[in-house]
Amino acid sequence: MPGQGHTLSSIGEFGLIDEIRSRFSQPSAPDFGIGDDAAVLTPSAGMQILVSTDLLSEQIHFDLDFGTARLLGRKSLAVNLSDLAGMGAVPRWFFLSLSIPANLPLETIEGLLDGMAEQAKEYNCILAGGDTCGSKGGLTISITIIGEQRPELILKRSRALPDDDIWVSGSLGDSALGLQLLSQGKRINSRDDYLLLRHLDPTPRCNLGVKLAKSGLVNAMIDISDGLLADLGHICEQSRCGAEIKLENIPLSPTFIKHFNDPETIPWSMAITGGEDYELCFTTAPGNHSAIKKISKTAGIPVTVIGKVTNSRQVIACLPNGNFFRPSASGYTHF
Amino acid sequence: MPGQGHTLSSIGEFGLIDEIRSRFSQPSAPDFGIGDDAAVLTPSAGMQILVSTDLLSEQIHFDLDFGTARLLGRKSLAVNLSDLAGMGAVPRWFFLSLSIPANLPLETIEGLLDGMAEQAKEYNCILAGGDTCGSKGGLTISITIIGEQRPELILKRSRALPDDDIWVSGSLGDSALGLQLLSQGKRINSRDDYLLLRHLDPTPRCNLGVKLAKSGLVNAMIDISDGLLADLGHICEQSRCGAEIKLENIPLSPTFIKHFNDPETIPWSMAITGGEDYELCFTTAPGNHSAIKKISKTAGIPVTVIGKVTNSRQVIACLPNGNFFRPSASGYTHF
Repeated sequence: MPGQGHTLSSIGEFGLIDEIRSRFSQPSAPDFGIGDDAAVLTPSAGMQILVSTDLLSEQIHFDLDFGTARLLGRKSLAVNLSDLAGMGAVPRWFFLSLSIPANLPLETIEGLLDGMAEQAKEYNCILAGGDTCGSKGGLTISITIIGEQRPELILKRSRALPDDDIWVSGSLGDSALGLQLLSQGKRINSRDDYLLLRHLDPTPRCNLGVKLAKSGLVNAMIDISDGLLADLGHICEQSRCGAEIKLENIPLSPTFIKHFNDPETIPWSMAITGGEDYELCFTTAPGNHSAIKKISKTAGIPVTVIGKVTNSRQVIACLPNGNFFRPSASGYTHF
Repeated sequence: MPGQGHTLSSIGEFGLIDEIRSRFSQPSAPDFGIGDDAAVLTPSAGMQILVSTDLLSEQIHFDLDFGTARLLGRKSLAVNLSDLAGMGAVPRWFFLSLSIPANLPLETIEGLLDGMAEQAKEYNCILAGGDTCGSKGGLTISITIIGEQRPELILKRSRALPDDDIWVSGSLGDSALGLQLLSQGKRINSRDDYLLLRHLDPTPRCNLGVKLAKSGLVNAMIDISDGLLADLGHICEQSRCGAEIKLENIPLSPTFIKHFNDPETIPWSMAITGGEDYELCFTTAPGNHSAIKKISKTAGIPVTVIGKVTNSRQVIACLPNGNFFRPSASGYTHF
């Protein structure tokens, strides 16, 4: 491993591939075709495969200056794992493509791969292939993830029913607030670490997602990447229904609340439209509270009922006094 | 569809997604989860899946000034289809991720998608998902393709045997010469069109690849993307053998030969190390000539024996006089 001051140019393409191989365990299955034109994979019998892909582009999705390369590596895989979690699928394989500026420090690449390898190990997801090339612009990270699940257990956006309870896991808004603090110049190793890390190192809810899928109690599910209102909106659009959520029920972390000294100044827009929480939003028929709470306890992730699916076609948020709340922004747009 | 002069910013992310959806037919299968966090796919019973991914980066892999956006769209999918062809797999689905500069003309995106849709239709490969985002650098195109094949028919690089005949499809070097002409300022609609198009619009040998796989006669196969010597080298490395090829047997197109008035000046290095031919290189036990020629005829793609697999661990090219030929470059490196 070359030391500090080296760039990608100094190790070349094959050096880079060695850096990648050394970090990810190779599966021993004889039918696993790494080193061929394509990876040969064997889905488990009776399973459908679920495939998701995300492209992360420097200065658009991430700023290398905001955190460490290791955290960026963790997050790159986390956002893909979260897509599978949102459907209740079990992660199996992923493919990593990198477009790398020739002057990028080698330690950045090493950190990126280290973080990705940690996450891959934790979620038992195998690196099965990829592509590497140079870039005349910034760093681009493209990951395609493949999971699997029994067809009848897969959770879609399209099956919410009027009167369903709407749930979210964890707490909302931390990531958006963390991003705001990062943009203001805050960095990790400060007393704001929790918030910054919720943005830089989100936890995909894979375990909870699979448990919910297996329970058979969930009608529709999505992961919250574009903000609660936008993603709940996707469920409503695909299920041809509406939703009414109560702001007083939105789960906020103690750190988020503490950040705003006065409860009157809680930025609800940030909590319900801020992106990148990577929590799960799902709906269940009424009367399943204790069963869902039990699953939540086993998975170690709190869940909260925040509202109801309705017969209208609108997603509405209500203030404690019953008035409609109009958020100041609704979800992230990419261009 | 907005007219000339528009850029991506003027239609936004959802406008772009509409542009994509309008060009690619949506499968009607009820279990097909487009619009969810992940696509839900059902491989055919008894099949393994084969997955390949390629990242194309502006100014590294392509120059928008060299050809049309439509040709770039065709080629982006072709190089992925070729990876499946190299293993004898049948294309099924692909995933498209685009990182797009905000000032890229909309007609470039439209052309790109048109070309990709043509190719997808021709090879019966369904767009099953993807991701779009902005870019602060150039255009990046990331495609992941999934094919399938019965496990016993999949052709790998690792099963060449000493004394095997080595075959290639089509002709070699045209793409490299085409690229040279493009770099010198030649553009399509000239008398060099054939060569330019072999670089800008290569044909993946999917049909031939699948027929060869089904024949059961092929021991090892690869698609030639990095140049014959490099890719045959991959077969030899994985099969722990060597190869001896005869330059006089290398198939050259009449246009390639005609370009160099004097046969003495044929640039053999270009033919055997030039990349991006996207032809197939494969090996068969001796004595299968007529069976392979018959398959070639059915597929409509000529094939030629160019040498033999050997017990050594070297890949050697011989001149007609029996002397070793030392190429001036050996394959493409990305950094």
